[in-house]
Amino acid sequence: MNIENLTLLTDFYELTMANGYFEHGLKDEIAYFDMFFRKVPDDGGFAIMAGLKQLIDYIEQLEFSEEDIAFLRSKNIFSEAFLTYLKEFQFECDVWGIPEGTPIFPHEPIITVRGPVIQAQFIETMVLLSINHQSLIATKANRIVRAAEGRAVMEFGSRRAQGYDGAIYGARAAYIAGCCGTACTISERMDGIPALGTMAHSWVQLFDSEYEAFAAYAKTYPDACVLLVDTYNVLKSGIPNAIKVFHDVLLPMGFRPKGIRIDSGDIAYLSKRARKMLDDAGFSDCTITASNSLDEYIIRDTLQQGAKIDSFGVGERLITSKSEPVFGGVYKLAAVEKNGKIIPKIKISENTEKITNPGFKQVYRLFSKESGEAIADVITLFGEVIDDTKPYEIFDPEHTWKRKTLTNFKAEKITTQLFSGGKRVYDSPNVHEIKKHCAFEIDRLWDEVKRFEFPHKYYVDLSPELWEIKNNLLKKYSDE
Amino acid sequence: MNIENLTLLTDFYELTMANGYFEHGLKDEIAYFDMFFRKVPDDGGFAIMAGLKQLIDYIEQLEFSEEDIAFLRSKNIFSEAFLTYLKEFQFECDVWGIPEGTPIFPHEPIITVRGPVIQAQFIETMVLLSINHQSLIATKANRIVRAAEGRAVMEFGSRRAQGYDGAIYGARAAYIAGCCGTACTISERMDGIPALGTMAHSWVQLFDSEYEAFAAYAKTYPDACVLLVDTYNVLKSGIPNAIKVFHDVLLPMGFRPKGIRIDSGDIAYLSKRARKMLDDAGFSDCTITASNSLDEYIIRDTLQQGAKIDSFGVGERLITSKSEPVFGGVYKLAAVEKNGKIIPKIKISENTEKITNPGFKQVYRLFSKESGEAIADVITLFGEVIDDTKPYEIFDPEHTWKRKTLTNFKAEKITTQLFSGGKRVYDSPNVHEIKKHCAFEIDRLWDEVKRFEFPHKYYVDLSPELWEIKNNLLKKYSDE
Repeated sequence: MNIENLTLLTDFYELTMANGYFEHGLKDEIAYFDMFFRKVPDDGGFAIMAGLKQLIDYIEQLEFSEEDIAFLRSKNIFSEAFLTYLKEFQFECDVWGIPEGTPIFPHEPIITVRGPVIQAQFIETMVLLSINHQSLIATKANRIVRAAEGRAVMEFGSRRAQGYDGAIYGARAAYIAGCCGTACTISERMDGIPALGTMAHSWVQLFDSEYEAFAAYAKTYPDACVLLVDTYNVLKSGIPNAIKVFHDVLLPMGFRPKGIRIDSGDIAYLSKRARKMLDDAGFSDCTITASNSLDEYIIRDTLQQGAKIDSFGVGERLITSKSEPVFGGVYKLAAVEKNGKIIPKIKISENTEKITNPGFKQVYRLFSKESGEAIADVITLFGEVIDDTKPYEIFDPEHTWKRKTLTNFKAEKITTQLFSGGKRVYDSPNVHEIKKHCAFEIDRLWDEVKRFEFPHKYYVDLSPELWEIKNNLLKKYSDE
Repeated sequence: MNIENLTLLTDFYELTMANGYFEHGLKDEIAYFDMFFRKVPDDGGFAIMAGLKQLIDYIEQLEFSEEDIAFLRSKNIFSEAFLTYLKEFQFECDVWGIPEGTPIFPHEPIITVRGPVIQAQFIETMVLLSINHQSLIATKANRIVRAAEGRAVMEFGSRRAQGYDGAIYGARAAYIAGCCGTACTISERMDGIPALGTMAHSWVQLFDSEYEAFAAYAKTYPDACVLLVDTYNVLKSGIPNAIKVFHDVLLPMGFRPKGIRIDSGDIAYLSKRARKMLDDAGFSDCTITASNSLDEYIIRDTLQQGAKIDSFGVGERLITSKSEPVFGGVYKLAAVEKNGKIIPKIKISENTEKITNPGFKQVYRLFSKESGEAIADVITLFGEVIDDTKPYEIFDPEHTWKRKTLTNFKAEKITTQLFSGGKRVYDSPNVHEIKKHCAFEIDRLWDEVKRFEFPHKYYVDLSPELWEIKNNLLKKYSDE
């Protein structure tokens, strides 16, 4: 359970390749790798970057313990010189990335690693694992939060998560993406994410009656009294008993009720009836929470049907991104250096969407000065500057006759350096800051990009320089 | 990253309820909770129990650190007496479970916890999280292993797992369920699960030619030479270069090739062509591995089409159980004790399949002495003995006229005690033993239960005594 050292949480081929590079004198060959993804989960219009802090922590702590070395030696395939190299391992790469909470789009580099190939290759598994997992959950959670249209969404999925830090870092990603809190207690102790929760059905069952169970809870938590009303029958028993306890116990103690929670049945119908019963009893300030197998579609539909729900508790469909549980980020070689010169590399595929963008790159986001909204992302070569004081022409990299000249726009470089020569040069913001950044950046996207189904396809273009490099490489390979 | 203490990986309501029980003098009330599930993922015929070792480790190490207590105090809702109780926490419950690797079926108790309600309730989240995750992955992995019909299946999904121990414990569950190894290196260091892997496309790209890349690899790993042949073109370049390197480099060194790997394209077609090319070149001992977005259906179909594949590397669709990424285990109150007497509790629902089985229970599995195959499971009251020297009548608990009298059968109790009075009384077998147990127990199931689609529904019946208790409670509630 106590996994303190995750250095060997890496695909074994990273080690066979590393040893191979070492043996063939290639260990200091400088290589550039990009992480990018090809498709937004759930066919959404954008994803959300997350998991960077944990990746940075991993890289900063990266070292091979005596135990790791002894284990690798026991495999009898690694040279002693290579094992000594690992023992003395010092991370020397430069790393760039897009900050957590930022909307991200297919094909743009969200992480770029430059350095000795043996090192830049080695961290592949953890780059992908960290970013794929949390970006997946953040992207899904934000869909659910958007469906709730300003109502609170609480992450309730720990028990159905895929492993312990599926729960912990899933709760983190959900909070970043807009959830107001989580049921996962350790997330508050670790990161200050509000931990929320009141009672299970077993609380109600353990007392001789629902009334007694509610009364006992109200006495213990008079200022945070939320009652679960569906153990027996919501409308015939749960709500009437809750109202009785509000009158008998809470008001005499000088407190108002906080809310009720409905965890089964038709929540659209039940919430409307419950609202009326509470209002009629003088408790229009008592909120209604719903929490039964919810996702963005069910929340949207129940709200369209006039459900009177103030907040949602969302479990398994959020914490596993049930409808699409994989974020398919990949990590591909983009360039190597020969005699100090960058040689772009491309991976060709018969499947054209699997062709990579070659070279050492960065990403700009262009905003309309008029509306403030994002117009397009442009992937450029590293160091290219998009001068937003002059008109700038963007074009579709596949259908190059589709062109548009931008004026009155602002160009923001969204790629940030994280490590320089192996040293961290970036301070991870705390989760509250990331959450704020996320909300702010999503606000700057067109509504059309935020549709759940068939969203507008946001432009991710290439600078003319980058496009030319790519096109020349494609020509070269097709000529062969 | 270094999560050493997972005590607070618990839903916050476990703590509000615990404090409530404590405040109302109910902390030593004895309660019985069952974990069970209602549906096999992917509509399969059975699931596989996994995750017990990690749950046992968690329970054994369960304690509240100074930091945990300080955090809980800062919430300002827990009494000092309760916090003192937590500080001095000693686990006192009895716990039973079905051993890892055993096939399990809907509605039977796979974990039972008996003890002070405050404790038995508290561990809910970790019981569910541990067993839900690993049982999900073991169940999926076994489907994929069955589809491969004796060919090796390797778990290759770390980079797409949902979090770090989604990868680590997912690899463990996959191995238990029949995978021969994993790409996840740390799994071998921790548990001795064979870590496997050779090269990525980037290895091939980094050299000036595919031939040079293959030759370099063969020189470094002459006795374990598996070459990835799809970086450029499998049939025109990859296989010819591999064959050339086998001749030029391997044979002169005195070694035979181990294999080639194909990671894209139509693997049915490509593997047949590759097989012929290798055979014609005199390398019929060179194996072919395939590894591109595989699952049980694709493996079954390619084998039906005569694919010449010796082993499969399976990634995201296994490690996330992509087609159904949630194992819906629940944890429900089954009984309480009053004056030393067990009072069964039932949870009623309009949805009849959500009605629980009340009381303190255990599970028997009945096998035909003739064929050795499992006939049915019977849930009985704890302590009931099924005497397999006499005929025994089983009956469908819903359609009670469906009856069958068994003779010449063997009854095995599959519920095992794990903790007694808070002390562990069970030694977790190692993963290799569990893997063997799993294969043995699955062998004892009818083939009809193992179909991927529309499997035969295995019987899970109730003993007459248990059925009567349940039926009386149902009558009592419907009379109210």
